[in-house]
Amino acid sequence: MKRILLKISYDGTEYHGWQTQPNSVTVQQVLQDGLQKVIKERPNVTGCSRTDSGVHAREFYCHFDCPDNIPNKAFLMGLNSVLPDDIAVTACETVENDFHARYNAKGKNYIYRMYFGVRDPFLSRYALYLENKPDIVRMNEYCTTLLGKHDFIGFSSSGRTVEDTVRTITYCEVKSVDNTIEFSVSANGFLYNMVRILAGTALEVGRGRLALDCANTIFETGDRSKAGPTLAPNGLFLNKVYY
Amino acid sequence: MKRILLKISYDGTEYHGWQTQPNSVTVQQVLQDGLQKVIKERPNVTGCSRTDSGVHAREFYCHFDCPDNIPNKAFLMGLNSVLPDDIAVTACETVENDFHARYNAKGKNYIYRMYFGVRDPFLSRYALYLENKPDIVRMNEYCTTLLGKHDFIGFSSSGRTVEDTVRTITYCEVKSVDNTIEFSVSANGFLYNMVRILAGTALEVGRGRLALDCANTIFETGDRSKAGPTLAPNGLFLNKVYY
Repeated sequence: MKRILLKISYDGTEYHGWQTQPNSVTVQQVLQDGLQKVIKERPNVTGCSRTDSGVHAREFYCHFDCPDNIPNKAFLMGLNSVLPDDIAVTACETVENDFHARYNAKGKNYIYRMYFGVRDPFLSRYALYLENKPDIVRMNEYCTTLLGKHDFIGFSSSGRTVEDTVRTITYCEVKSVDNTIEFSVSANGFLYNMVRILAGTALEVGRGRLALDCANTIFETGDRSKAGPTLAPNGLFLNKVYY
Repeated sequence: MKRILLKISYDGTEYHGWQTQPNSVTVQQVLQDGLQKVIKERPNVTGCSRTDSGVHAREFYCHFDCPDNIPNKAFLMGLNSVLPDDIAVTACETVENDFHARYNAKGKNYIYRMYFGVRDPFLSRYALYLENKPDIVRMNEYCTTLLGKHDFIGFSSSGRTVEDTVRTITYCEVKSVDNTIEFSVSANGFLYNMVRILAGTALEVGRGRLALDCANTIFETGDRSKAGPTLAPNGLFLNKVYY
């Protein structure tokens, strides 16, 4: 047996996230269906993260084990020929047998996209629409207050329980080009809905509805209600995974 | 009564083209449904062209008549608030009562998009995937042979009948940036499937499967079978309409 690491990319609009669930179509399930067609086996595929329903991935990694005699090109050429257009395998390599797509990930970068001004149907699928441009300078001042090691429980939803809610943000910045805005954040890990709440809080700061130092209050109190809204999934992209 | 000219944009993936048809969802129908919600009337909306099933429009114009007392902002703000995300109204103005979105159009520009190399789910919805890069210089040599006034019957599908199949192409060029290719063509009018066949022929020339001067043979013989394939609708965009 050998362990294969696949690098994939997907438009998450039509999927109920990565993880297989009863009665809904997920990326993991469609990928496993594809493997079954190509290699006549159905290995369990382990992803680097669970993305939520409607969230996209420019770069997502997953691993599985398969017999040594199956050539790796089966997973690139072969799998792409049977997958739907909204999921693509972009690279494939053999890794050590103890490599784990999730546990070996040292950090991840997510991007939350927004756009403003004239509505554009080619952006609306991949970015949150705003009527007006928020204050990018204010948003970036807020971003700097997120950097470092903090308890992010106030920036998470209660849907999934983890014991340790402390994470370290290593990069956080807002960039605006033309009529688009990208909130980009890197950390060693993320809590449930954390990026969408961090971005929703950034937006409220940019609109002047929350204070520049609101993150400090949220860190101190752990109070979810003091943060901004959980933004819609269509603007969120898992952008990079660091190993 | 006043005549309103709407400028709209749409992602055509989910629609059976512009024109209302029984038992299928079209852009015209969704737009008329939206108008009914906003102004409580259902004017007949006339489009600048019929786009086919799955074809996109970056810029599409349509006109309709409505009572003078309805403010134009109802068609911009109001209509956008009820339309799905894949159709957007981008501008609205009152025009002369004899203005006609189709008959007044002096010409149109269409773009057919392709991409090559690593598969990208964010491009696949809006561009034809090619495994290899075709020869762009050859494609452009072919494009110059299309310029001017010709009988384009050999570059059209037989689905719709028009008497006059002579059209004048005023611009035709292929541009390639990074891993994308855009075939762009402007003319005073287009026959059924004409752009998709012109682009399909360009692709076959770029792959070396058709001769550089194949268009001359197709003009002379009017033989559809000598042209390239009708490419898939997802790569086609109505890009500009000239009045």
